[in-house]
Amino acid sequence: MTRIFVHGAERDIDPDGEFAAWLDPARTAIVSIDMHEGHLSEDPSCPCPAPRGREIVDGIDAFHREARALGVRVIHVRSTLRASGADDIGGTSSSAWRATFPQHVGPIPGAADHAIEGSRWTAFVTEVAPEDEIVSGKKRLSAFYPTDLDFLLRQLGITSVVLDGIMADCCVLNSAFDASNLGYRVSVPSDLVRGTDEALERAALSMISLHLGLVLDSAELLEVWHGRS
Amino acid sequence: MTRIFVHGAERDIDPDGEFAAWLDPARTAIVSIDMHEGHLSEDPSCPCPAPRGREIVDGIDAFHREARALGVRVIHVRSTLRASGADDIGGTSSSAWRATFPQHVGPIPGAADHAIEGSRWTAFVTEVAPEDEIVSGKKRLSAFYPTDLDFLLRQLGITSVVLDGIMADCCVLNSAFDASNLGYRVSVPSDLVRGTDEALERAALSMISLHLGLVLDSAELLEVWHGRS
Amino acid sequence: MTRIFVHGAERDIDPDGEFAAWLDPARTAIVSIDMHEGHLSEDPSCPCPAPRGREIVDGIDAFHREARALGVRVIHVRSTLRASGADDIGGTSSSAWRATFPQHVGPIPGAADHAIEGSRWTAFVTEVAPEDEIVSGKKRLSAFYPTDLDFLLRQLGITSVVLDGIMADCCVLNSAFDASNLGYRVSVPSDLVRGTDEALERAALSMISLHLGLVLDSAELLEVWHGRS
Amino acid sequence: MTRIFVHGAERDIDPDGEFAAWLDPARTAIVSIDMHEGHLSEDPSCPCPAPRGREIVDGIDAFHREARALGVRVIHVRSTLRASGADDIGGTSSSAWRATFPQHVGPIPGAADHAIEGSRWTAFVTEVAPEDEIVSGKKRLSAFYPTDLDFLLRQLGITSVVLDGIMADCCVLNSAFDASNLGYRVSVPSDLVRGTDEALERAALSMISLHLGLVLDSAELLEVWHGRS
Repeated sequence: MTRIFVHGAERDIDPDGEFAAWLDPARTAIVSIDMHEGHLSEDPSCPCPAPRGREIVDGIDAFHREARALGVRVIHVRSTLRASGADDIGGTSSSAWRATFPQHVGPIPGAADHAIEGSRWTAFVTEVAPEDEIVSGKKRLSAFYPTDLDFLLRQLGITSVVLDGIMADCCVLNSAFDASNLGYRVSVPSDLVRGTDEALERAALSMISLHLGLVLDSAELLEVWHGRS
Repeated sequence: MTRIFVHGAERDIDPDGEFAAWLDPARTAIVSIDMHEGHLSEDPSCPCPAPRGREIVDGIDAFHREARALGVRVIHVRSTLRASGADDIGGTSSSAWRATFPQHVGPIPGAADHAIEGSRWTAFVTEVAPEDEIVSGKKRLSAFYPTDLDFLLRQLGITSVVLDGIMADCCVLNSAFDASNLGYRVSVPSDLVRGTDEALERAALSMISLHLGLVLDSAELLEVWHGRS
Repeated sequence: MTRIFVHGAERDIDPDGEFAAWLDPARTAIVSIDMHEGHLSEDPSCPCPAPRGREIVDGIDAFHREARALGVRVIHVRSTLRASGADDIGGTSSSAWRATFPQHVGPIPGAADHAIEGSRWTAFVTEVAPEDEIVSGKKRLSAFYPTDLDFLLRQLGITSVVLDGIMADCCVLNSAFDASNLGYRVSVPSDLVRGTDEALERAALSMISLHLGLVLDSAELLEVWHGRS
Repeated sequence: MTRIFVHGAERDIDPDGEFAAWLDPARTAIVSIDMHEGHLSEDPSCPCPAPRGREIVDGIDAFHREARALGVRVIHVRSTLRASGADDIGGTSSSAWRATFPQHVGPIPGAADHAIEGSRWTAFVTEVAPEDEIVSGKKRLSAFYPTDLDFLLRQLGITSVVLDGIMADCCVLNSAFDASNLGYRVSVPSDLVRGTDEALERAALSMISLHLGLVLDSAELLEVWHGRS
């Protein structure tokens, strides 16, 4: 049996039962979201700080290493914005978080530099292996729009995705919605995502577990995959 | 000043300030999500019960009436699935909630009848005025995919949407993400959405307020619109 | 060997060779485009006349009957526009053909009635079998946007499409481009499409044969399918 | 009056009449398609030769220079494919032209190198000015999928596009269909596109003129813009 969390409560499911399509390593890709300097740097000029994300860098790296060894594909997604500004602050509709998030955390001094193509802020903090794929060009909250992630997943024959990274209550959750709507089976390792705060992290995981897919510990997921590879 | 809620805390914003684009009634449409019999019926065979939604039927109707009088467009979105089953339980990838939600609430006896085209379950419970628009063909959680809602909003010259209906922590939240990613300014009247339970409702509104747009009382929104019409 | 046409020239290909993925009846759907009264009616008030399309009604019906017997799915796509006019002449950007096509054929008196939801113009002229699927809501030239055709094809497990109907040089060609870009293998039976005139029909088939997929006689296609069912 | 071509015939239209939305330089972007080494190089190892395109390099550069001076935006689109091969020959569904086009022109020796990210084949042959925008990541025939071109155009407030480049009967035509379906007004300068051969060039321009928008000489377009800037 496999231990999952449903709205915070533990449940045991049969990995060969109705969730089998969620747990097939041969058709699964890990989609690791926004683990780059622009969110994770400790530099005070970090343009869009998500400090809780630093806690999971090592865990994500270890998870990806073990997954690769089992043949599971790893895809790293990062935000990049054209230097002209057209994609965001210089365009007809800038990112909503630029107006809303400071209502909670106060002004974000470096925000204008967020995700600028070619800048140091777009460097990944987590390990990228030669056989991994990279999706650049995330420009809003979803990993799917306006990127080629869906195209890439189709080309790889993927039918199930595992989402890790930041932030649980925005980009990860939004990508989980999109992936599920597009027909992919979605799982989220609860130990490898972080959000705005612990309460919203838990809430995001509850929503995923109720409406979208499996929330479970990464070790549990690896155990199922080991049994099938 | 206009009173909004940010992660549950009250804030006062200048409606002519940086949120002005969120508050222009001439370019705003209300998108009312899934207020149909398939979620709201008290019949025990209701295929996908969202009982908390019944609390807001009268409030939504009153809000829409006043909005229409101010020239704000109202668009009603509903789920419809082909009778063949191909869109969902008979297709290659059925709706994830069919597997996940019963882990929390137990078996849903009528689920196979959910949203079937032409069935009584697709009838709106809220009032639909002759000048309103209808978007049918929602098949998963988002109001935008695979429907023509974005196409319709572009054709109407809309740049700002107000989302009401059910459920706050899945279809409303997912649609808020999509709308914001597509460049629309998003507001959600906190009194006119309902979710799985009160905790997830509050969490969904927190996420919207932090990452996507304005969360405020519908009366507050109407007051701003009155001042501008 | 299977006889195909490449830029008008005959070629013989091995149906088990590099085009095998184009020719698998088990994963193929026929997508029949816009064979409805609004294009085919002989009534002088026909809103968007495509008179050459009448020549292929019987041929399409016969092809579909034989295909169904072999287990190939048939999907009928039709244009429908909201009665409010928002989708087209009452919206921010009306269909381009309303301005361009009359430069060639002169005024089109009934054009304002084209494809209005619920009107007699949306009735199919070709046979629709109970097991067929229908995609309504085509609003511009492509069968894919803003409809749920891609969603439906994914749900049906389809990887190859055969396009018939009208018009070869606009809606069929546009749909062939979209299908191919989305990863579907595209074939077009040269005897079961019609265009603006014979020259543009031939040119559209040339383009499809050079850039997108197989152009061949419907009898040839049926023969391959017979050999595989 | 402005001279246009409709299915090859000359027509004079009033630039302030029903085509006014096609001719507003302030809301227009030129989208220049695939004018890179991978199509235009004279090197025998050129991976996807479109030799007729070389004839228009100078004309396109001159057109863009004059357009920029009038404030019209220029966007250069190019194909790029991941080095892993997943986007194309190593994926579940490779580009259709790899199978179809050699049926007409014979084997294409360098085809495997086409558009590989970071290779010399992705260098633009036409001039790119500092204020221009670049869209990389075209992977099939359309400039819109799976790229962020539509997102960028929305952000720039563009409602009308002018397409130049190669090839008239595939990528330009496909992009014209997509742009028009998405609500953009489309024009194509007949002297600044080239196709597989002259016959298909003419046919593509006929299709655009009948179904999508304006086909006219680039000098004619510049003259209208001059009158409005």
